[in-house]
Amino acid sequence: MKVRKFAIGDAQMERSPGQDGDIFAGNVVDENDGGPITIGFGRWGPNQSLSETMAVDDVMIVLEGQISVSTGSDTVTAGPGELIHMPKGEPVSIHTQDAGAITAYVTYPHWRTAGM
Amino acid sequence: MKVRKFAIGDAQMERSPGQDGDIFAGNVVDENDGGPITIGFGRWGPNQSLSETMAVDDVMIVLEGQISVSTGSDTVTAGPGELIHMPKGEPVSIHTQDAGAITAYVTYPHWRTAGM
Repeated sequence: MKVRKFAIGDAQMERSPGQDGDIFAGNVVDENDGGPITIGFGRWGPNQSLSETMAVDDVMIVLEGQISVSTGSDTVTAGPGELIHMPKGEPVSIHTQDAGAITAYVTYPHWRTAGM
Repeated sequence: MKVRKFAIGDAQMERSPGQDGDIFAGNVVDENDGGPITIGFGRWGPNQSLSETMAVDDVMIVLEGQISVSTGSDTVTAGPGELIHMPKGEPVSIHTQDAGAITAYVTYPHWRTAGM
């Protein structure tokens, strides 16, 4: 593999699995590239919500807007320049407020094949 | 492990190994937390340079400023909201321009113990 630079325009956005709302994700590096990690960008509309049990370790870096993650009674909220680590095995509810959010993410191992 | 949110203020900055310039890194999640990945923040002064052969896969997300990575005759440059993937095994030269840079990073496996 080679050193590569990516911007959100390099990501082919697809609706995230498990929901039919305004939440899109696009990998720029994944299982097809032969390395251990997946890298991508996410685009979240306003007031969206997504619940899942983490199949991988996932780091979401907030580039624009604001995103919150709830586990049980605890909620953390991150804005631009901040990040949220969601460890494998954690049940999470991810949600946005009025501003929506643009994120970058890194997962180990690859999220798309982790459930297979 | 639990879901956690981090900002650069949560990182205890230390001078990066292998250089005595104005380049600092601070892990917020690493080998001491029991998971597979290291997460942290970096602070690069203006016109700094660091060369190394990657012992891990490293994703640098640029939060402020600008950062460039050269491999042989190829150079990529990333600004705010963009990221650079440096795969394990690649010899890289990382450098900043007048603006310096603030970055977030995710590595697999843990960079601090990868050389041991």
